[in-house]
Amino acid sequence: MQITRDTCLDMDKADSLAGFRDSFELPEGVIYLDGNSLGAVSRDAKRTLIETVETQWQTDLIRSWNTAGWVDWPTVFGDRIGALIGAAAGQTIAADGTSINLFKALVASLRMNSDRKVIVSAEDNFPSDLYITEGASALFAGTERRLVPAGAEEDDVIALLDDSVAVLTLTHVNYKTARIWDMKRLTEAAHKHNILVVWDLAHSAGAVPVFLDDAGADFAVGCGYKYLNGGPGAPGFIYVAKRHLGVAVNPLTGWLGHAAPFSFAPTYEPAKSIESFICGTPQILAFAALKGALDIFERTSIAALYEKSRALTDLFVNLVETRCAGAGLEMVSPRESGARGSHISFAHKSAFAIIQALIARGVIGDFRAPDIARFGFTPLYNSYVDVWEAVQHLVEVLDKEEWKRPEFNMQKKVT
Amino acid sequence: MQITRDTCLDMDKADSLAGFRDSFELPEGVIYLDGNSLGAVSRDAKRTLIETVETQWQTDLIRSWNTAGWVDWPTVFGDRIGALIGAAAGQTIAADGTSINLFKALVASLRMNSDRKVIVSAEDNFPSDLYITEGASALFAGTERRLVPAGAEEDDVIALLDDSVAVLTLTHVNYKTARIWDMKRLTEAAHKHNILVVWDLAHSAGAVPVFLDDAGADFAVGCGYKYLNGGPGAPGFIYVAKRHLGVAVNPLTGWLGHAAPFSFAPTYEPAKSIESFICGTPQILAFAALKGALDIFERTSIAALYEKSRALTDLFVNLVETRCAGAGLEMVSPRESGARGSHISFAHKSAFAIIQALIARGVIGDFRAPDIARFGFTPLYNSYVDVWEAVQHLVEVLDKEEWKRPEFNMQKKVT
Repeated sequence: MQITRDTCLDMDKADSLAGFRDSFELPEGVIYLDGNSLGAVSRDAKRTLIETVETQWQTDLIRSWNTAGWVDWPTVFGDRIGALIGAAAGQTIAADGTSINLFKALVASLRMNSDRKVIVSAEDNFPSDLYITEGASALFAGTERRLVPAGAEEDDVIALLDDSVAVLTLTHVNYKTARIWDMKRLTEAAHKHNILVVWDLAHSAGAVPVFLDDAGADFAVGCGYKYLNGGPGAPGFIYVAKRHLGVAVNPLTGWLGHAAPFSFAPTYEPAKSIESFICGTPQILAFAALKGALDIFERTSIAALYEKSRALTDLFVNLVETRCAGAGLEMVSPRESGARGSHISFAHKSAFAIIQALIARGVIGDFRAPDIARFGFTPLYNSYVDVWEAVQHLVEVLDKEEWKRPEFNMQKKVT
Repeated sequence: MQITRDTCLDMDKADSLAGFRDSFELPEGVIYLDGNSLGAVSRDAKRTLIETVETQWQTDLIRSWNTAGWVDWPTVFGDRIGALIGAAAGQTIAADGTSINLFKALVASLRMNSDRKVIVSAEDNFPSDLYITEGASALFAGTERRLVPAGAEEDDVIALLDDSVAVLTLTHVNYKTARIWDMKRLTEAAHKHNILVVWDLAHSAGAVPVFLDDAGADFAVGCGYKYLNGGPGAPGFIYVAKRHLGVAVNPLTGWLGHAAPFSFAPTYEPAKSIESFICGTPQILAFAALKGALDIFERTSIAALYEKSRALTDLFVNLVETRCAGAGLEMVSPRESGARGSHISFAHKSAFAIIQALIARGVIGDFRAPDIARFGFTPLYNSYVDVWEAVQHLVEVLDKEEWKRPEFNMQKKVT
């Protein structure tokens, strides 16, 4: 059957999640396919942000630490995020950013396996994660990294695991290809060698089913401003499995990780709970939008969101491959929708310019060096007709060779 | 001359800074003496926060990294803060929090002086700073701390400095007593032994004159939500002297400290600039209020603010000591106003309950364990008559023994 715009409109009519779009403040004339980089503004997020400023900071001032419960936000929001990633309460906090949380988890792991000197990861892990493995390694003389090549599979990772390995760290959903690592299989393979496993859930949390407790994960970290829609710079999170609490040591020994922070004791004594992974004072204004943004997840389920995500990405792949055939777009994401996260990437020699040309038309995806055009689909606010329109614009950009225009070929800072 | 409420009103009339009070959103019926813990909301801060949400995040979405210049906020706001602490441009970034920035500076210092194994600090330094010295020390085998006792003076610190010391770290204005260390004298004394010096400016920035470049400081860190009024959890800052840029290494090797973060290179290569001390993605919503909050400092000067601060604290001390004589309040701040920051502390065996009783009356100061009642004075929004009223309430709390009420004696989490 030929898919038409009307087919897409019918899919939207049948979509039980379609109503959530009205919960977001999306600009007119924009098809936003970058929620995997920065989630959109929900009305709830805006409400809690303004409430935090006007009825808390402005009115209760310093008292808000108690009256609004600010001091508990890292654990309160940690547990709410935990519920979305298969973590029972008391193992997750929201704090700092993904890279800093990864540093905490890696240093803690290297100390727990202090007789071992190898970190295993993947060459195509997110660069910041690789940089943090370098930074953490540098603190433990003789530590080396062992990386599987880009595009490796689970068997390749398992082949690198042995009793010299202290820690395995991978990003669950690849930031470029969207390929999902088999969390449970890799975690179990690592545990056979007493290797600790740290998962980065930056492109997973709020988008794909994750079952940290069930997989036996040791640590996980992630991001609050992608699919969780917490706003630019929303706090990240860190999960530490219950069995490691009181054992794993946060190297960033700030006062709020202390067993009794308000006793102002002269020496550091870590909390026995997940709170030991907090460092300094919580970034309340960065939490304020996340507070409301998380509400929406309590009115649906990750399973329902992922089901729609798979349908959206399948539709996109289908339309691009039929309508843009021969344009040099090479799909680099897994073809099986259950093997990938909520974005689709195509390699193209002029990917940068294509993305710029699409942005000029109001279709916002992003470019990832050196040659990837990446499109994220957020089931909460993307519709099937969004997919149709985005592909229609892509067809026109390619047919008219719009991407050859000079203004679309000036490299700028992008994130 | 006997000081009366009318004297205070006259002082307000003569105060050239009095007009700034209207730039803040202060709640009715509150005398806020805790701006040293959490600054109040300025109208400019609220404006830029809402603008960041509505015209940037909501409208330009991911494009705001370029269109609103988000990616440059750490250096842009760093330089604006730098101007308030005597730092020429290009040496300061706003990022993360004070404790994490202190960790960066201490680890960088321990590496630069890697043949040395001693950190010198003070027993009465802010606990989180001491905890971070422990956390950083633990990463360098054999590192020990040498602490001057509480209440020590410059000579006591200098007596601890020798060629075995890697780094000296102190908080410029003591969080309890408000005593100011002589930054230039101590830095010069440390440099005679090639010791690196890290200053914490948490209670200094925006309140007292600081001249980092002139003092020859190596590193400094501080907080955005106290006297800078950036809102709860506003980013902190870190200063690295120009001569150390490209040499000092940030242990938190996140992507935005990379020399070319958007090239997504596989290995970490630190920027040669202050940007190497950035770790992950900036906390934009935490920056958003700071953006406007800093505006006001461009319409006055730290010298003018500190002059009024000294007059406010002198008035407070004078009134408390004359009107509350015999009530058991023992001043622990320096008597000479030029030797202290912008707060005043009194020790009292029931300091906790006294502060609670004052809060119930709308006079907000804070308690610091075990026995300190602390009152911060912010020249931008505190008036002389605020000081009069606060003391009047204190007189009544003491005279009527209000602090003995059970509801004021239940210890809660406070920050």
